Amino acid sequence: MRSEEELIEFLREKFPPGRALVGIGDDAAVFENLVFTTDMLVEGVHFLKDHPPFFLGRKAVNVNLSDLAAMGAEPLFILMSLAFPVEFTSAWMEEFSNGVSSACKEGECSLVGGDLSRADRIFISVTAVGRTDSPVLRGRAREGEGIYLVGDLGLARAGREALEKGIKGFTILEMAFWNPRPRLKEGLEAARLASSMIDVSDGFVLDLHRLLQGKGARLDQESLPIPFELKRFCRKMGVSPLDYVLYGGEDYALIYTSGSDHGPGRRVGEVTGDGRILLGEREVPVKGFSHFSGKPSQKF
Amino acid sequence: MRSEEELIEFLREKFPPGRALVGIGDDAAVFENLVFTTDMLVEGVHFLKDHPPFFLGRKAVNVNLSDLAAMGAEPLFILMSLAFPVEFTSAWMEEFSNGVSSACKEGECSLVGGDLSRADRIFISVTAVGRTDSPVLRGRAREGEGIYLVGDLGLARAGREALEKGIKGFTILEMAFWNPRPRLKEGLEAARLASSMIDVSDGFVLDLHRLLQGKGARLDQESLPIPFELKRFCRKMGVSPLDYVLYGGEDYALIYTSGSDHGPGRRVGEVTGDGRILLGEREVPVKGFSHFSGKPSQKF
Repeated sequence: MRSEEELIEFLREKFPPGRALVGIGDDAAVFENLVFTTDMLVEGVHFLKDHPPFFLGRKAVNVNLSDLAAMGAEPLFILMSLAFPVEFTSAWMEEFSNGVSSACKEGECSLVGGDLSRADRIFISVTAVGRTDSPVLRGRAREGEGIYLVGDLGLARAGREALEKGIKGFTILEMAFWNPRPRLKEGLEAARLASSMIDVSDGFVLDLHRLLQGKGARLDQESLPIPFELKRFCRKMGVSPLDYVLYGGEDYALIYTSGSDHGPGRRVGEVTGDGRILLGEREVPVKGFSHFSGKPSQKF
Repeated sequence: MRSEEELIEFLREKFPPGRALVGIGDDAAVFENLVFTTDMLVEGVHFLKDHPPFFLGRKAVNVNLSDLAAMGAEPLFILMSLAFPVEFTSAWMEEFSNGVSSACKEGECSLVGGDLSRADRIFISVTAVGRTDSPVLRGRAREGEGIYLVGDLGLARAGREALEKGIKGFTILEMAFWNPRPRLKEGLEAARLASSMIDVSDGFVLDLHRLLQGKGARLDQESLPIPFELKRFCRKMGVSPLDYVLYGGEDYALIYTSGSDHGPGRRVGEVTGDGRILLGEREVPVKGFSHFSGKPSQKF
C-alpha cells in the first residue's frame, strides 16, 4: 500500500469537493454553514477489548466533536454505525448508549440515526454535523503569528501503554486514553481570533506540521510543560516524557495560530517561514510515535 | 439481546431528535432542508470476501443513496469510514475507489471526507447527505390509497444464495446482489405525489409493514410478477419464488403510497384500515427471510 500522503493525495484527486466548499483534507468538510466529519474506532486497533463500554460510547462521539471544535463549529447532531458480537448483553448496549448519550448531552447535540450490525469485533463509525458561519481551516497561518495550545499532551499515549502492558497505578493516564474530552467551548472562543486550527489526534508535531502546510514553527520548550503524571510514568518506564508530549497522539487538544494572545490557549511558539519545526534551536523530526510501527488510521 | 423493535424503541427513547425535525426511525434524519442517513457493510455479514471491490465501493454508496431516494431527496455528498486488512494492495484500493467514484458520479454527489483504518476484515460505513424541501416520511398513508412499487423484488436474495452456495449460471441474480442501484430519479418523481415512502432493504412485506405503521395492505398477486431469472433459480433449487419476492430483502426497490396513478411506480395493492398484509384474500406473515436465522443489521 502506498504512503499516507500518497493515499490522501490519491483520494483528493479522485474525489473533488463538488458542491462542498471544503472537501477532503481538513478536520471536516464544509457545506454552506454546516461542517461534517467522520471518525471510526476499531477494536484491537483504536481501543482494547476491556475499554469500559460507557467510556467507549463517549469516546466514539467525542473524537468527532473534537473535529468540530477544530473547525470552530458548534455540534448539531451525530449518526452512528455500530457493529458488535452477537453474544454481547443488553447491559453492554445500555452502558454504551449511556456513554453516547452523556457525550451528546455535554456537546448539546443529538443522535438522529444509525445502523446496527453483528460482527466478530466492535466497530464504531460516527459522523458529526456542526454549524459555524466562519469555519477555521488549516494552512492559513501567517509568519510571526503565535502558536497556541488548548489541553494536555502525552497523557493518552502513556495511558494506552499502561493499559496494554498492564502497568497499574496510572488512573489519570488511563482516563486520558479512555475518556478524552473535546475542547468545544475553547474551539468556539479560538475561532474568533484564529487564522488556522487543528485538533491533535496523531501527535502534536505531526498535526502542527499539517496545520502549517509548508510554514514552520519555533516552539519554546518551557511552554510545553510535562504533566506530573506523565513524568511519573516515564520515570517508572525509563523513557523520555518529551517523546510522549511531541508524538503521543490521541490528545484531542487544539492547536491554533493567531496574532492575538487573548484566546483560550497558551502560547507555545511562533510561526516561521520555512517548513521546519524547531524546539528552541533544535529541529525535531516530523513523524508519528516511534514506539508504534504504523498509525492505526488515517482521516481524510 | 432484546428484540429489534425493543432495541429501536430503546434508542428512540434514549435519543430524542433535538434540533432535528425527524430523528431515529425513518429512512433518514431531517434537519432544515437536509436529510442524513448512515448504513454500513460488514464482511461476512453483508457481503462475502469475493465481492468484487469495484461493486463493493458502488454498493456502499448506493445503499445509502437508496435511503435518500426513499425520502425524495437529491444527493449532495457522502462521508465514508473504511477499514480493511493491511495486506490489501493498492490495486484493491484503486478498484474500490473507482466503484465509489462511479456511484458518486451517477448520484451527482461527492465524497468529501472519511477515515481509513486497518482491521482484520472489511468494514465500510457511509453517511449520505441529501436535500429536499418536502421529505417523504413513513406512517402517513391513508386508507384507500394505492401502494406502488419501483424496481424488482427477490433477485438480490437469490443472487446472494447462488454466490454463497457456489451455484453457477445466474449472473443477473449475482449482479442484483453485488451491484444494486438506487432509484433516485423515481424517488424524486414519487415525492411529488406520495403520502409515504420507504426503500426495501429487509424484505418487501417487512418494509411495507414499517411504511404503513399500523395500517394494512391488500396486495394483488398478479401485480407482483416473479422475474424470469428468479423463477429459473427457484425451479433449480426446488423452492418457492414468492418467498423471495415477499421476504428476500436487499432489493433497494421503493414502495410508496399515493392517491394518484401518475407516479413512477406500478400499483401493487391498496392501503387498508387494519394492520394486516393480505395477498389477495390470504394474510401473509410480517417477518424477515425464513432461510436466515437473524437479520444482519438494523437501521435506526
